Amino acid sequence: MIIIGELLNSTRKQIRQAIEKRDADTIRGIALAQAVAGADYLDVNAGALADQELEALEWMIGIVRESTDKPLCIDSPRPEALALGCRLAGDGPILINSISAEKARYEEVLPLIVKHRAGVVALAMDDEGLLEDDERMFSVASHLVEDLAAAGVEHDRIFLDPLVRPVATGSHYGNLALDLIGRIRGTFPGIHLSCGLSNVSFGLPERRLVNRAFLMLCMARGLNAAIMDPTDQMLMGEMRAAEALLGRDEYCMNYIAASRSGNLGL
Amino acid sequence: MIIIGELLNSTRKQIRQAIEKRDADTIRGIALAQAVAGADYLDVNAGALADQELEALEWMIGIVRESTDKPLCIDSPRPEALALGCRLAGDGPILINSISAEKARYEEVLPLIVKHRAGVVALAMDDEGLLEDDERMFSVASHLVEDLAAAGVEHDRIFLDPLVRPVATGSHYGNLALDLIGRIRGTFPGIHLSCGLSNVSFGLPERRLVNRAFLMLCMARGLNAAIMDPTDQMLMGEMRAAEALLGRDEYCMNYIAASRSGNLGL
Repeated sequence: MIIIGELLNSTRKQIRQAIEKRDADTIRGIALAQAVAGADYLDVNAGALADQELEALEWMIGIVRESTDKPLCIDSPRPEALALGCRLAGDGPILINSISAEKARYEEVLPLIVKHRAGVVALAMDDEGLLEDDERMFSVASHLVEDLAAAGVEHDRIFLDPLVRPVATGSHYGNLALDLIGRIRGTFPGIHLSCGLSNVSFGLPERRLVNRAFLMLCMARGLNAAIMDPTDQMLMGEMRAAEALLGRDEYCMNYIAASRSGNLGL
Repeated sequence: MIIIGELLNSTRKQIRQAIEKRDADTIRGIALAQAVAGADYLDVNAGALADQELEALEWMIGIVRESTDKPLCIDSPRPEALALGCRLAGDGPILINSISAEKARYEEVLPLIVKHRAGVVALAMDDEGLLEDDERMFSVASHLVEDLAAAGVEHDRIFLDPLVRPVATGSHYGNLALDLIGRIRGTFPGIHLSCGLSNVSFGLPERRLVNRAFLMLCMARGLNAAIMDPTDQMLMGEMRAAEALLGRDEYCMNYIAASRSGNLGL
């Protein structure tokens, strides 16, 4: 599994306040905690700062870059923030979060992916917005993958995201995402499939339990990346068990090592 | 999910000793605990008592029948023990554990299923023993379902079991079972798919964590029954979350109710 640490996101109150106060210790602490816990990328998002997003993002990336050399996942709805983030991200891999099949967004973000040879989170939506229909979702997602590939973005740089919605708002939303994951995995075995894990549990009690169960269900269908909280030890422990069960952990060695070092969240 | 409570099994030391001492309180307590925790069937197995299996089974079923009217799952390798169990099980549904495509076993157990209109756990193996090959497993499993159906056992009385083996003894055993579950679910949508959950974790640390992760993976591929420990509250809580995520819990009402009554294992 490729783990994109979700915690440095300005939609979270703690992060927004830390950015507003330029509280470097909080940002540094959360960056390091995620890196130590096993994140492969650190998502950085300052979008909630609205017209101060660019300065906020520049400051936050500066702090993170002083703390750890983990690759960054630059997260913004604004192409100029993505461009800034890519310039500041340093050497090594970059992930851009995100592109979609929305025409304007696609055209603005694609050049950045090409320029920085970045990976990209590709959202399964177009100008019609969020989709309700299995066939339309598959069609939008598969065309997006094909268009990116035709533009020179290799499959292993694409992180397709089914854009899961809260099951509390529709009992079918879990299956909609899971079926898309399974079908896209069958069609494009070489791409990454990722999702933002915590959306699905919005509005339900015990959200961490729901997120954990959903990660398992998604992994069973072919998910191999997630934007998630790597400091959630129970989530990470169960993910390690699933890796062993899915044959991605030869002789269960990683699982057994995690057990010996007390890293299964028990 | 259809939950077959696994605890009254004589291969467990506590149960074997309780049977040997005719300790009715222990048997009664475990029967009731599983019923209260949400078991749909109670598995009863006295096979470890060898040549005293029949008397032991008769005694154990007597105690269970005094305690709860939950349906029984009669579990034995010996057809005469299955026959005895069916006679003593009382009114209501009976599950026979198990039949397989082994010729002698198939011919001895089939008449019992027909006579008692019982459900049956159908193991995906034949006289070659445990199978290693995807295609052979699918072939044995699908022929077994077709043969049972041709003999008058409706699909909704068949609980196909992929016979999962420990991943600690082979990294591919998880996927072998999961792929069979997915393929059989696609081919026979109306049958039940069940498995014994705890085999998969044999030889690994933190077995309950592995069992929980495996239940999730199996449910994502189409499992709708399991022989498991219903008194494992974390397992049951995650199963309830998965039911909501898989669209089997309208408006997440069961999940929310379990949360309110403190039944999510947290």
